[in-house]
Amino acid sequence: MAPRTWILDFGRILMENGTGSSGRTLLVIGASQHDAAAYHLSGFLAPDPMICLRAKDRSYLAVSSMEYGRAKKQARADEVLSFDELGVVDLAKKLKSGGRALAAAAAGLLSQVGAKDSPVAVPPDLGILYADELRARGLTVTPEAKLFADLRRSKTEEEVSYIGETQRAVEAACAHAVEILKESEAGGDGTLRWRGEVLTSETLRAEIDAELLRRGCAADGTITAGGPQAADPHDEGHGPLRAGESIIVDIFPASKESRYYADMTRTFVKGEPSGELQRMYDAVLESQLAALAMIRPGINGREIHARVSEILHEKGYKTLQHDQKPGEPLQEGFIHGTGHGVGLEIHEAPRVSTADETLVPGDVITIEPGLYDPKIGGIRIEDLVVVTEDGSRNLTDFPKEFRL
Amino acid sequence: MAPRTWILDFGRILMENGTGSSGRTLLVIGASQHDAAAYHLSGFLAPDPMICLRAKDRSYLAVSSMEYGRAKKQARADEVLSFDELGVVDLAKKLKSGGRALAAAAAGLLSQVGAKDSPVAVPPDLGILYADELRARGLTVTPEAKLFADLRRSKTEEEVSYIGETQRAVEAACAHAVEILKESEAGGDGTLRWRGEVLTSETLRAEIDAELLRRGCAADGTITAGGPQAADPHDEGHGPLRAGESIIVDIFPASKESRYYADMTRTFVKGEPSGELQRMYDAVLESQLAALAMIRPGINGREIHARVSEILHEKGYKTLQHDQKPGEPLQEGFIHGTGHGVGLEIHEAPRVSTADETLVPGDVITIEPGLYDPKIGGIRIEDLVVVTEDGSRNLTDFPKEFRL
Repeated sequence: MAPRTWILDFGRILMENGTGSSGRTLLVIGASQHDAAAYHLSGFLAPDPMICLRAKDRSYLAVSSMEYGRAKKQARADEVLSFDELGVVDLAKKLKSGGRALAAAAAGLLSQVGAKDSPVAVPPDLGILYADELRARGLTVTPEAKLFADLRRSKTEEEVSYIGETQRAVEAACAHAVEILKESEAGGDGTLRWRGEVLTSETLRAEIDAELLRRGCAADGTITAGGPQAADPHDEGHGPLRAGESIIVDIFPASKESRYYADMTRTFVKGEPSGELQRMYDAVLESQLAALAMIRPGINGREIHARVSEILHEKGYKTLQHDQKPGEPLQEGFIHGTGHGVGLEIHEAPRVSTADETLVPGDVITIEPGLYDPKIGGIRIEDLVVVTEDGSRNLTDFPKEFRL
Repeated sequence: MAPRTWILDFGRILMENGTGSSGRTLLVIGASQHDAAAYHLSGFLAPDPMICLRAKDRSYLAVSSMEYGRAKKQARADEVLSFDELGVVDLAKKLKSGGRALAAAAAGLLSQVGAKDSPVAVPPDLGILYADELRARGLTVTPEAKLFADLRRSKTEEEVSYIGETQRAVEAACAHAVEILKESEAGGDGTLRWRGEVLTSETLRAEIDAELLRRGCAADGTITAGGPQAADPHDEGHGPLRAGESIIVDIFPASKESRYYADMTRTFVKGEPSGELQRMYDAVLESQLAALAMIRPGINGREIHARVSEILHEKGYKTLQHDQKPGEPLQEGFIHGTGHGVGLEIHEAPRVSTADETLVPGDVITIEPGLYDPKIGGIRIEDLVVVTEDGSRNLTDFPKEFRL
């Protein structure tokens, strides 16, 4: 895996972000293959936990002996150490715990570099086992959600280009899905058939995922839900797809190489939708376009979300904002947020919802309002947008075509 | 996603395991799509954090309003609640943090069910933000690595069958890789060619991953490393593959449906290997077969690992056990553990290494010794084995064929 030179130019990212992280001691203990903070800080992909430290403007990465050679070549840290050097194996024997040993080794490293007396900022998901061990060894450890989220919010140009590459794969896969739907034909009972077989959610999903994989992207949870199944925003969909029912296609893979996600949703119908379904689609589209037009630095995500809720409410649909009753989860209408950040994680800061989040240049966010009716189905339309210095740029290049 | 009825029969699992978890209050806060503990406890797959609680022999699952309908249908908890009922949204506004709000809601739920006065066992990777909030609200929260690991160690028959299904996909994908290697031909410079193109690690990996995907499995990190690249156990491999060099094929996907992993490694060579490479292969094979023969309930993983190290040491190779010098990461020979548990995570308890871990029936472990030489390459041979009441059963059905 080629070194991500730009991603780990720590100093530059911190200066560009101008966040509260300059001068702070940052510590992450996690496996970068599953831990975005660890990957973002180290640029080194591995399946087992590593120690990522930034203290006094130097960056350190400690890995197992087995990973050491590769880390020296690939990681962008001022100093790469092995667990062996930090005495992890002996600590593990003494503490009878590999996890505690890692944290103890991290504490030792902090001491070694003269940073044990200042508070250490950690991601909010640092494991309790690590946290307890660090604190037991006298360190002041504070979970700093905003600090770590901000580090990843303002995407560099290169990061946006990686997201763009994943987005191209999403669009190619969706185009393939559209081809399949266009080729399919409705049988007497409305069930769609494609190439001699019933067209199921599973088949459509498999075709999408295979197309993504051909382009080096891995998807877990591609949604191809039709009819009432689409009324549950996270239902992947199962069984035959039918004419006249809306089909939500939501594709959100990550590139296996760059690790960056992209995210797009389109809703289709084969044949004639009911008037009600068409009205739902038109309402969602109108609210989505209105939201897209609002995106610029300085605007608050909650303003965008409020506008979407307002539009849908005015058109007679239920929304969380207007119709949520305490103790009764709302099951129809506009029942989720308007969007979320996308990067090394599929859901990251900032949220575009009732949350107080002012957008900044470099934010990459989805805009994905939807309407859901357990009796007839769901509609969702989603684009991926980067906030620019003076507005925004839609990274999504795919038509919003309902009837196929 | 069909309910996993057996996996969440909490009482049965706990009685079968006879672990220290019966009667204990267990709490997990995490997104089950990425958090094996949350998935194991709830049987409900979702990409956003949920609260899984077991107290006084009842199980509770709390999810967002959006997931609530699906959770009621799919999860196996005695009680499914929505965040809305627990006041999460209001808490989030008050605390200015969704994460703290979740933990606060969990504390409230524990209070509600009369379990706030007993210590709460949490997984060692429970986020520090959650832990601090729970403790600030008066709860005694203890990370219990062994308790949660034990819950997942003794696999039920159904779990083993899911692992077996993933294993079948692994074998089919490896068979396809073998076909490709057999079809390939060496050019004048030793570079392999397949279907008119240079055969690269990337091509072989893409073919394997596509085959896995056709069988419903997703792979992240399939290794197809040749020559000196294979001397780094985690190097995925890049560029042309060559005759005469060992090619390590390590396939470890998870089923998208069941979420269970399988894991297998075979090492191949096209054409004539050097005498040295053949000797390395023979040594690894001998140590692997010896290790497989040792597996039974009651044996300690470290005995198996010691035997493997002994065999390889006697044959003249370096091992961590015999040759690790403090401060000098060993880069050649047998430079990792002998194996690890496999289940809802690719690396889980028990480890088969220097760690003190007595094997029990239901443990599913890999046995994967290897030898690595930065000058000439690597050899690794890996099977997946379930420990049975009186011995073991190898779940891997694939020949150990070096020369193709």
